[in-house]
Amino acid sequence: MEVANKHVTLKTHIEGAPKESDFELKTSPLALSLNPGSGEMIVKNLYVSIDPHQLNRMKSCSLLQKTGTGFNGIALGEEIEAYGVAKFVASDNVDFEKGDVVMGVVTWAEYSKIRRNGMIRKLDPLGFPLSYHLGILGYSGLTAYAGFFEICKPKRGEKVFVSTAAGSVGNLVGQYAKLHGCYVVGCAGSNERSLYLWSYITTFPNVQLLKEKLGFDEAFNYKEETDLNSTLKRYFPDGIDIYFDNVGAEMQEAAVANMNTFGRVAVSGVISEYVDPGKRAAPNMLQVIFKRIKIHGFLAADHVGLFQDFISTTSHHLRNGELCPLEDISDSLDSIPVAFTGLFRGDNIGKKIVKIAEE
Amino acid sequence: MEVANKHVTLKTHIEGAPKESDFELKTSPLALSLNPGSGEMIVKNLYVSIDPHQLNRMKSCSLLQKTGTGFNGIALGEEIEAYGVAKFVASDNVDFEKGDVVMGVVTWAEYSKIRRNGMIRKLDPLGFPLSYHLGILGYSGLTAYAGFFEICKPKRGEKVFVSTAAGSVGNLVGQYAKLHGCYVVGCAGSNERSLYLWSYITTFPNVQLLKEKLGFDEAFNYKEETDLNSTLKRYFPDGIDIYFDNVGAEMQEAAVANMNTFGRVAVSGVISEYVDPGKRAAPNMLQVIFKRIKIHGFLAADHVGLFQDFISTTSHHLRNGELCPLEDISDSLDSIPVAFTGLFRGDNIGKKIVKIAEE
Repeated sequence: MEVANKHVTLKTHIEGAPKESDFELKTSPLALSLNPGSGEMIVKNLYVSIDPHQLNRMKSCSLLQKTGTGFNGIALGEEIEAYGVAKFVASDNVDFEKGDVVMGVVTWAEYSKIRRNGMIRKLDPLGFPLSYHLGILGYSGLTAYAGFFEICKPKRGEKVFVSTAAGSVGNLVGQYAKLHGCYVVGCAGSNERSLYLWSYITTFPNVQLLKEKLGFDEAFNYKEETDLNSTLKRYFPDGIDIYFDNVGAEMQEAAVANMNTFGRVAVSGVISEYVDPGKRAAPNMLQVIFKRIKIHGFLAADHVGLFQDFISTTSHHLRNGELCPLEDISDSLDSIPVAFTGLFRGDNIGKKIVKIAEE
Repeated sequence: MEVANKHVTLKTHIEGAPKESDFELKTSPLALSLNPGSGEMIVKNLYVSIDPHQLNRMKSCSLLQKTGTGFNGIALGEEIEAYGVAKFVASDNVDFEKGDVVMGVVTWAEYSKIRRNGMIRKLDPLGFPLSYHLGILGYSGLTAYAGFFEICKPKRGEKVFVSTAAGSVGNLVGQYAKLHGCYVVGCAGSNERSLYLWSYITTFPNVQLLKEKLGFDEAFNYKEETDLNSTLKRYFPDGIDIYFDNVGAEMQEAAVANMNTFGRVAVSGVISEYVDPGKRAAPNMLQVIFKRIKIHGFLAADHVGLFQDFISTTSHHLRNGELCPLEDISDSLDSIPVAFTGLFRGDNIGKKIVKIAEE
């Protein structure tokens, strides 16, 4: 059997913020059977993850070289890798059966062909919606959990600042920090938005959402602030102990300037630098010394040893209603370019996911 | 008994690099006896330490506020605090006897009056020259030891880069790293210089000194390099694991760009920023994330728990001739302004000390 497989590709390499016109939807024939011994696998995608860091592989080779991070660029016309939850369709891998729900690295496509040794595993949904396994119980969740607990080593009562606090990782860091007994302030770009929350549609400005629904002590809209240094001084009269950084640039500088001795900066993302490589944080190093500040870049991938601990803690809190899963789900493959570019406009609230097909 | 106490003061607050004309030598009468119960103490200084970080307290209040490090500025005409080795002269503190050799925070003066609870302690020279206790066996030594072993957590065979490697701390970091089995490259400004080394006067360019006398694998003169990024790539074809930073700015950026995954930057000093607060390091944070780099400011003061360990290890290596004490000693109080300003021209080789009086 053969299907016409619709997928998203790059029409042009991206410089600066991504535009919808940088992407193209294509359809290619795909046989849903495989040669024995190929080691390949075919899955039908149900949900795919939309993440800001994907932009880093969409740049041209020369731009990629400038970042010096060793990313493999995505060729024009090639399928674009992403985390996803999918249904197993075909393979000669005896570990899987047709209809099994799997998760791992798929592509922005209706069907994905997974190479031999592709990163894919059978998924036990643990009684939760499948989409949770891309967000609060997936890589975003592990990033928040490992970054906050392992990198920041928080103590009860410490003062925590989270940027892009309405984003997929930031909202969870704030929620974990509140459960840990910290004082938490988040910043977000705030537009009044409708979102699907606890099974009903509701309208919130992000900032209000952070405080009223996620329990942050304070939240502010960075777009309304002219001097981030003074803003942080206002929200942290006793200084910041932990800054969970998702943006880099001026926000990191202002956080370091307002930091207490032995403060920690967990650098999880630098969305400002993804869009504009010339935009860099230049924290005051004299303060870094005298306040003995640690600035620490990390990837969740290094903390997979925490995965079981993360899943059991997080699912326990979810079942007790102590953590709120914040998802922003669009429908259909066609919506991916809008969904992705929206990440850089601050359109999403929580984890951005595109639903490709019905379970 | 009263003496005419000569001391160095600030004539004007310093902006940018210090000039000799910023300082003034003054003489004030000082009674060498104390009222019982004052808790004060008078010492006669033998050696005083000359350190780049002292510049940070010599700036005007408004400049100090800009640094945001909470330094207490030094008022014009006031005595200038510094580490020193001294002879006890008078006090009502029964723990000391006249003639005891002490060390701690004194002033750039012939005699210093130490306040109640001043940082001063009796010194056991352990059979070494007194000056060693300001350098290799003093605060500089502890900074190198704690910074390298505690902050950088080196593994045998790792690749270590040290800036201002001919300076008081840098030369020791390089020597410890070699003893620990690391590959070590240092950078320094190189001028041909005469120095007192192992009891004879010899002439060396710094760079040659680092390699031939201190055992560095490689050394370069940063003043001869136009593109630090390429320079470091040349000396570290397999990347840098540890960067011991004494300068900040472009050098830190280039080190981060050449760093391996899980690299560590110990920020001990940022001499570039002392002189020009507008000169800041803006390391590529995307690389900091993807290479999981840790940038860690520290002060030796937080590691006094290591002091005994540091002293026993370092004195053992000294006795075995495995560590070379690099000292640059000028004579007489009058030479302090030249000695201090020379630090910022890269004049010193090793620990800069001024000898105030004969033991």
